[in-house]
Order: sequence, then structure tokens, then C-alpha cells
Amino acid sequence: MNSLLLDSDDVDEYARLDAVIDAVEEAFAAFERGTTQMPAKSYIDLPQYNGDFRSMPAYLDTGEWDAAGLKWVNVHPDNPADHDLPTVLGTMIYSDPETAFPLAIMDGTSLTMKRTGAAAAVATDYLAVANASSLGLVGAGVQSYTQLEAISEVRPIETVVVSDPDEERVERFVAAFEDRFDIRGGSISEAGHCDVLSTVTPVEDPIVGLEDVGDHTHVNAIGADAEDKHELADEVLAAARIVIDDHEQCTHSGEINVPYSAGTLTDADIHGEIGELVVGTKEGRTDDLGITVFDSTGLAIQDVAAAHVVYEAARENEAGYDFEMIDSGR
Amino acid sequence: MNSLLLDSDDVDEYARLDAVIDAVEEAFAAFERGTTQMPAKSYIDLPQYNGDFRSMPAYLDTGEWDAAGLKWVNVHPDNPADHDLPTVLGTMIYSDPETAFPLAIMDGTSLTMKRTGAAAAVATDYLAVANASSLGLVGAGVQSYTQLEAISEVRPIETVVVSDPDEERVERFVAAFEDRFDIRGGSISEAGHCDVLSTVTPVEDPIVGLEDVGDHTHVNAIGADAEDKHELADEVLAAARIVIDDHEQCTHSGEINVPYSAGTLTDADIHGEIGELVVGTKEGRTDDLGITVFDSTGLAIQDVAAAHVVYEAARENEAGYDFEMIDSGR
Repeated sequence: MNSLLLDSDDVDEYARLDAVIDAVEEAFAAFERGTTQMPAKSYIDLPQYNGDFRSMPAYLDTGEWDAAGLKWVNVHPDNPADHDLPTVLGTMIYSDPETAFPLAIMDGTSLTMKRTGAAAAVATDYLAVANASSLGLVGAGVQSYTQLEAISEVRPIETVVVSDPDEERVERFVAAFEDRFDIRGGSISEAGHCDVLSTVTPVEDPIVGLEDVGDHTHVNAIGADAEDKHELADEVLAAARIVIDDHEQCTHSGEINVPYSAGTLTDADIHGEIGELVVGTKEGRTDDLGITVFDSTGLAIQDVAAAHVVYEAARENEAGYDFEMIDSGR
Repeated sequence: MNSLLLDSDDVDEYARLDAVIDAVEEAFAAFERGTTQMPAKSYIDLPQYNGDFRSMPAYLDTGEWDAAGLKWVNVHPDNPADHDLPTVLGTMIYSDPETAFPLAIMDGTSLTMKRTGAAAAVATDYLAVANASSLGLVGAGVQSYTQLEAISEVRPIETVVVSDPDEERVERFVAAFEDRFDIRGGSISEAGHCDVLSTVTPVEDPIVGLEDVGDHTHVNAIGADAEDKHELADEVLAAARIVIDDHEQCTHSGEINVPYSAGTLTDADIHGEIGELVVGTKEGRTDDLGITVFDSTGLAIQDVAAAHVVYEAARENEAGYDFEMIDSGR
């Protein structure tokens, strides 16, 4: 019996965003219904290398399908400068829950981008105005590409404004999409006055003020992934309907972690988890609603859901490399 | 940059037991010196499939070398009968701690046997009589093969007695080793009167009584890996100098877990951790010592240490399959 090896190109090709968005939406619903298992991420901190490892195991049962797996991922900020490697490298083991057989081993780096874009798309679908046609992006790094790809799956995006102090990155981003969108570089405030805004930066001092955001903008706050990081000024959060992915992760390391720790933002200010919107126990956007914010930290079940999509599509297309990890002669 | 894929045959070939024993011994020492990181195993329980998954991440720095990795492993007891698959399947990701690059992905099932055999060998080296020439085995399953291979690396084993109610398994075991050892099937008591005894069964009711053990036998208690499991009668433990691998794991799921939970065995009855014997802060065997017991639960650092040996040897021999997980064109 073989395990399927899938590299970053395979993951790119077979993580079709429409399917990943559906799978991630089903994962959020399963999480809310309690048919998931997701032990807390465990960390190995290596200050001597300015890096850390995280293991993210999960199981989910959507009712239609179930899946299990583990992502082993890291953050090593010196990698690009010192080793010509990405800061974040991920490896995903996708396993059959019934037998634990490792069905596939795949690049977890591309997978992370896809499932993060998909989460923003799910939130945008429930929280942005129905006819949203403009998308702003703060940050023009690798994650922003998938934000645009995924969000344009759920809303008829025509106009895109991308804001980044690095002009080269803006040019590259514009060049990548100019044949499909009316796209240009702009200020944070111009990006923030679009119908949808995704913020994808690692800042610790908020860079998006209340004056930078339109009166019905839906904001996907993607960048914050650790204590002390946040991108949105407290006034934006105070004015917004706030939806989170997971209470524990968001209050510890998500967009809301700084004001939550300070006590200026409390549980009463949190509208609900995205899964509650999906299953219908909490309301998404209503006509009278102004700013909305989705605090996305990224759940292990998103990785497993995305891996499920990749594996099924790759098998169907006979892609990847078949590897017999365990000698069948035994 | 490539990751090396190593199947069970590669792991068998390149996990040379003398090297793995050395590496595991160094890992135990590092654990005692506090230069390891080993987050608690996290579990996903799937009663609907009568199975579970465990993730075992670890980092260790021996002073000479350091290494990081994660084993994703399971226990699915219905696998052999229902799916023609082993109960335990493991996948190991072996990573460069400096960059987190996945250097190798290898079969974790063979690796587990090697590192478990190696742990017993390290304990035997510190606790068995110096001229130990006979080894008893209770249980003739797959793990017992590596027990014999590993222990004969540290003691001049000539005579072997293997005890198992399944006569076919005994015959197979004897046939595998009869050209190298004076080996025969026998009773538990005959096995237990050897200089060294390894017990490798999953029983919940002890099968080795005090009368079954010689007056200076060193016992490697390998089988217990969960609450309620134990192989040795309380009287054996009461008479023995007890050495464990890790206090938390042993008191929760090791050989001593049942009497420890009952309060009939306390911390005062535990001589120390194997790492303390390796670094020399606790004594191993002395001339006047009788029975000794090593309670082996299996630590994630053992897997990483064994993976280090396999990876280095496989690279040197240009073995395995090179896989470019992340497209270098980016």
C-alpha cells in the first residue's frame, strides 16, 4: 500500500480554492457541532536559532466525510536572509482515520496559504455586503495572493487596492493580477475603504485606524499569529462586529489578543465564532451592520480539511509520487 | 533542496543498532541535563474505529549534535484482522533544528522497534551483571527480535529462552536466531532465570511472579504502554531496584502505573531515571544488587536520536529517494 507524496506544485494545483473553501466551511461547522478533535498546538522553542516548531494534529467529521492528519510547521525568521529558505516550512501527514495509514505526505507551506485564504473567504461570505466588488489588501506578501484568489471566489471582486511600503512587492502583485482585476497600489486608507479588506502583516503596532476603514467594510485580520501582534487600532475593533475562529487561539495569539489581555476588549465584545455563523446559531451580516472583523488564527482542522481536498483530487488525477513507506513483504 | 524518503527497509538497514544504542544513551543523558524539549504526547481518540493517534515532537542537544523531529503514530488494534495492516503505523519527520527544513521522512514503525530495543540495551548495560550471557524473552512478537539484537550488542549473550503461548511464533523466533545463539522455547520461569529478561507483552494481569525471576536478573519491562497494563507481579517490583525512563510517562502508562496509582509503589521505591545512571548521578548495578527492573515507556527523544542515526547513514550511503517537497523555483 502506498503513500502519495505531493510537492508544493501538486498542492497548488489540487487545492482548488472553491473546493477548499467548501471543506474549510464544513470544518468550521463540525468544530461548532463538536465533531472535531484538535489538541492544543505544542511548541518547541529554539531561541539559539531564533525559531520554533509547532505540531498541529486534528481530526474532523463533517457527517459526509472524516479526515485526520498532522501539520509540523515552524517559524524561523532568519531563514530567508541566512539560508535562502522560507521563514515558514510545513509538512502535512494526511492519514486515514480508520486505519491510521498515511495516505499522503504533502507540502504544508502551500497548504497553509490555501486554507488561510479559504478561511477569509468563508468569513467574507458570511460578513461582507452581498454585492462587494472591491477588495483592499494591506501587505503584498505571499499570503495576500491567496487572499485575493479565495475572496474573489465568494464575491464579484472587480477593483483591488494593495498597500505595502515595499514598492517592488506592490508592482509584482499588480503584475500578477492586472489581467483579471482593476488593480493598483494605494494607501492603507484607500485599501481600507474597499468593501472587503484583508490585513496580512506581522506588525505589533496597529497600522489600520478607524478613519482608514469604510463604514460597511468587512475586515479579515490575518496577520496576528502571536502574543503582542495586532494590525487594527482598538477603535476599529470597538466599532466592529467581531467574529473569531477559536476563542482560545484568538485571545492568546490572534488580532484581539492585545486588547483582550489589557481588558479593554472582553468576551461581551465578541459576536461569536465563525462556525456559529456557518451552522446558523449566530447571525452574519445584516442590512444595518457597519464594520465587521474576522480574527483568523488558523486551526489545525483547516489544514486537515484542505489536505482532504488535495488528496482526493490528486488521487483522481493520478498525480504525485507513490511511495511504499512500509514494505508490503512483511 | 531535497527531503530524503526512507522506507522500512532503509530504516532497518541504516538504523545500525550499535549506533542507535549510543545515540539513545546520549539522548537519555541530554534529557537528564535538561538540553531536550519534549512536549507531552498529544492524543486523538477515535473510539468509532477502536484507535488513536499520538503526536510526539522533540528536540535534543547532546553537545556533539542536535536534532529535531516528530513521530505521528497510532494504535489501531483491529488493523491486522480487518485491514491486513499493522496495529501500529508510524511516520517520522526528521528536521534540521536550525532551519526547520524536513531533512527526511521515514517509516516510524521500524524506527520505533530500533529505539525501543536500544533503550533496553542501554538499561541492560547499566543494570545487568557484567558477564551476562543468557537472555529470556517473554513474548515472541516483532519487538522481541530487536530486544535480542540490541541486548546482544552490550552483553555476550549465548543462551536465549523465549516464552510465548503461541508455538508458531516461538518456532519462527527460534528459526530466525538458531544459527547465532543457543536458543529454545521455554516457560516464563525459565526465561526469567536468565541473566537478562525482556518482557514484551500487552497484558493487564501480571504474568511474571517473583518465583519466576533469578536472584540477580535484570528485567526490561517493555510491554506496558497504557493505564492498567503491567507484566510484573508487585512482588517483583518490591524486590527490585527500579529504574524508569521518565517519571510522568511511567507513573501514568508504564510498568509501574498500576501499583503507583494504587499507592503500593511510591516515589521512594523508584531508584531513578535511566539518564541519571548515564550521567553518573545515580548508581547502576553494584556487586550486592539483586533483581533490577527498567520501566521503558519510550520517549520522543529516542525517536529523534534514532532518526538522526538513520538519516546520517542513509545520506552517507546515498540511499533513499530524494524528494523536492518545496519547488526551488520560488
